[in-house]
Amino acid sequence: MRTIKIFDTTLRDGEQAPSCSMHLNEKIEIALALERLRVDVIEAGFAIASKGDFESIQKICEVVKGSTICSLARAVPKDIDAAYESLRNAKNARIHTFLATSPIHMQYKLKMAPEKVLATIGDMVRYAKKYLPDVEFSAEDAMRSEKEFLARALEAAIAAGATTVNVPDTVGYTTPMEMVEMLKYLQNNVRGIENVTVSVHCHNDLGLGVANSLAAISAGAGQIECTINGLGERAGNAAMEEIVMGIHTRKTYYGCETNIDTTQIYRSSRLVYNLLGLPPPINKAIVGANAFAHEAGIHQHGVLANRETYEIMTPQSIGLLNNEMVFGKHSGRHAVEKRLTELGYALSKEEVDELFDRFKQLADKKKTINDHDLEALANRTVVDAPAAFKLDRFTVSCGNYVTSSAVVRLNHEEKLLEEVAIGDGPIDAAYNAIDKMIPAPAHILEDYSIFSVTEGNDALGEVIVKIKCGDKNVIGRGLSTDIIEASIMAYVNGLNRLL
Amino acid sequence: MRTIKIFDTTLRDGEQAPSCSMHLNEKIEIALALERLRVDVIEAGFAIASKGDFESIQKICEVVKGSTICSLARAVPKDIDAAYESLRNAKNARIHTFLATSPIHMQYKLKMAPEKVLATIGDMVRYAKKYLPDVEFSAEDAMRSEKEFLARALEAAIAAGATTVNVPDTVGYTTPMEMVEMLKYLQNNVRGIENVTVSVHCHNDLGLGVANSLAAISAGAGQIECTINGLGERAGNAAMEEIVMGIHTRKTYYGCETNIDTTQIYRSSRLVYNLLGLPPPINKAIVGANAFAHEAGIHQHGVLANRETYEIMTPQSIGLLNNEMVFGKHSGRHAVEKRLTELGYALSKEEVDELFDRFKQLADKKKTINDHDLEALANRTVVDAPAAFKLDRFTVSCGNYVTSSAVVRLNHEEKLLEEVAIGDGPIDAAYNAIDKMIPAPAHILEDYSIFSVTEGNDALGEVIVKIKCGDKNVIGRGLSTDIIEASIMAYVNGLNRLL
Repeated sequence: MRTIKIFDTTLRDGEQAPSCSMHLNEKIEIALALERLRVDVIEAGFAIASKGDFESIQKICEVVKGSTICSLARAVPKDIDAAYESLRNAKNARIHTFLATSPIHMQYKLKMAPEKVLATIGDMVRYAKKYLPDVEFSAEDAMRSEKEFLARALEAAIAAGATTVNVPDTVGYTTPMEMVEMLKYLQNNVRGIENVTVSVHCHNDLGLGVANSLAAISAGAGQIECTINGLGERAGNAAMEEIVMGIHTRKTYYGCETNIDTTQIYRSSRLVYNLLGLPPPINKAIVGANAFAHEAGIHQHGVLANRETYEIMTPQSIGLLNNEMVFGKHSGRHAVEKRLTELGYALSKEEVDELFDRFKQLADKKKTINDHDLEALANRTVVDAPAAFKLDRFTVSCGNYVTSSAVVRLNHEEKLLEEVAIGDGPIDAAYNAIDKMIPAPAHILEDYSIFSVTEGNDALGEVIVKIKCGDKNVIGRGLSTDIIEASIMAYVNGLNRLL
Repeated sequence: MRTIKIFDTTLRDGEQAPSCSMHLNEKIEIALALERLRVDVIEAGFAIASKGDFESIQKICEVVKGSTICSLARAVPKDIDAAYESLRNAKNARIHTFLATSPIHMQYKLKMAPEKVLATIGDMVRYAKKYLPDVEFSAEDAMRSEKEFLARALEAAIAAGATTVNVPDTVGYTTPMEMVEMLKYLQNNVRGIENVTVSVHCHNDLGLGVANSLAAISAGAGQIECTINGLGERAGNAAMEEIVMGIHTRKTYYGCETNIDTTQIYRSSRLVYNLLGLPPPINKAIVGANAFAHEAGIHQHGVLANRETYEIMTPQSIGLLNNEMVFGKHSGRHAVEKRLTELGYALSKEEVDELFDRFKQLADKKKTINDHDLEALANRTVVDAPAAFKLDRFTVSCGNYVTSSAVVRLNHEEKLLEEVAIGDGPIDAAYNAIDKMIPAPAHILEDYSIFSVTEGNDALGEVIVKIKCGDKNVIGRGLSTDIIEASIMAYVNGLNRLL
């Protein structure tokens, strides 16, 4: 049975989308999750794009050894140089270079004649091959390219030594039938294509990213580029969890398999949503809150009679645990640690120490602590930077016929700072007080959202603020049973990260 | 060119999903939006399922005259009786009856022999035909049925007078190729199928709902069952906006069109998300926040050179207005009313009066009021029930080292009630005070979420609470620049609806 390679680009194409930019420690956490998923290739970034991208690729090469690490590069020497530099410490590394081959891209964006495009592809793949044996070439906007020209472009890449050739549907325009026809055409018209891996990279603009990827597999593709939760530019990329579970559920139909450990899917999906501060859509296939829920009376009746009447895969197959555990203030560190391992978290001793401190604080306020609470605590522990300013105390008073006021005391390098301010509402007042104390560069609060982590009166709420400072965006998080406290913690956390 | 009928089941299959139940006035608002979209058939509910379903179908039949109204019924006389009763006032009505035809459903859920299933289909379609000429039959779990048996089942339905036969992929298991094969088989093996409309109803469990629907169109299907935003059981149904824009964008490829007014898509999508209190996923195809955003430097460069390098449809085609307008406290009623019309709202004089009052209150607190604010005001105006209890005043005081307390004064039938309470955090304290005054039946606060409607320091926040009372769920909403006030308003609004 063929094994389809999974090439994940959550950290590159996914991270490029508005509201999806990530910090170094967040990227590392996701890279580790991808390694646990047993992804074949992790596209870790676009080395030339920014210093942050470069550094995170470097760091990921140091900590992730189970997957090939890939860096993106336009088809120009300086990009390829930077890509290689960023990959030096990788156990297995790939340079991924691309150039557009569609008439509209060549004419308007590249302003390059077709023959020049072909020559550049050959030159730049050869250039990358000097550095590394594993080189991928992507013909950007392949699905809107003339197929004869696309064939020549891929042939040039293969002749120059590319080991993977990628056929992206860059604008999400194609259909499954067209994808099959295109791949069949290429297999019959590109010299040497049988010796390399054919890959596709499908966008979801018309909702067909997953369908086109699966169609490509039926037509012989050996690698699929995708992202966790289908994140990515515009309507995103094909969702990894949907492709993998499609293959897994219909193994006989597709006649292939992947190396993915499907039981890591749920946890990885939630980690990505959490880190980006995005709520999981209830009706998202595979990982949505309702994916395994059976609401209608008729369906419940059927599921009780035989699960398979309405269920084509089990919640366990994606790592959804069904034996929910409940903890409280008397729970021991060992039990909490054990449960975190079951939930898929691999925390260091220091991280468990810190998490257990927070667990105890939370247990004082909240009668029962369940898996969702533990996940929230673990996600925070994992990505929190050391804080220059910490919340000590606050009091707030507000009402609809009084001006809101807040007194906030912060701890900064063993000194206590305290300020008072008024505002439009209690949060605004508290934030104004904080702004008087934390010397952050000029910024605006771009978004503010609260998620209930758990149900009930003493629900744990997570506040996520998005702070924009020039071109830079940071996310701040706060977790508490009191939304004012969570809001203050989130803002202080965000400003700490901005400093 | 063929015209594909769009059969929307947001109000039936969509509403069946967890967190998606709706009240009468919300359903009517969505039905009106569907009529403006020029949907061919609106499945308004499942008449026998509950009194609420029955009444909302009745009411929708009264107010919507531009689309056929359809009511679902199991293949039993009492269901069909109820479906017909609920449709009496419709201008154009359809009874939709269904029975499962897959081995697993017949054996475990129906406990019915295959021959009995065939007989029942004939009997019940004939029974429905006594009431109405327009009868649809669905073979539940068709895509997991034996194709010879499915052909006999559809033949029985057609012989008995069904004018539409539906082939649902009930569990979201099928692939586009299998869908094409199945429809081709049925076209060649079902007597009379050329005289009826062949329909499909695809679920999204493996992310292929839209692809399977479009494959069915290529194979000759004349009707597609779908929902706004792809809501529905589990991972939902095929998303209407993706199917319609797929056909629209690739008209030559599919060789067909729909009656849908695509410029109503954005507004209808947002209305449904708003009414259900669900945040639109950023990477949702067609209607997500990022669907028309081009973040990466390379993409922006391309789009500036020529939009079509990365854009295959325009934002205008789905009704996204690009000339954002800004209002303030000096804006006149006429200007506000005109903008609401441009945004797609058709409000009565009373509704505009009420909205303009709120607009003025808001303009006192918020410097600039934009389209998103107006939409939030309009959505609230449209679905608000008359309130038995109204918020008069409140004051709250809280902190991390003090016990939170809240004093809340409510207006009830011209009398003022006032209570004080403590709680875990300010919201809990305020809710405890409210619980002392409003005599609602025993309930739990199931979910609490805040959305920033707009950006900046004086952002308008909408709080949505989900309150569970036995089997019943209600949603309460509150809109304010102060989240505590919005939270109190949402809870009072929810409890009013529970009474």
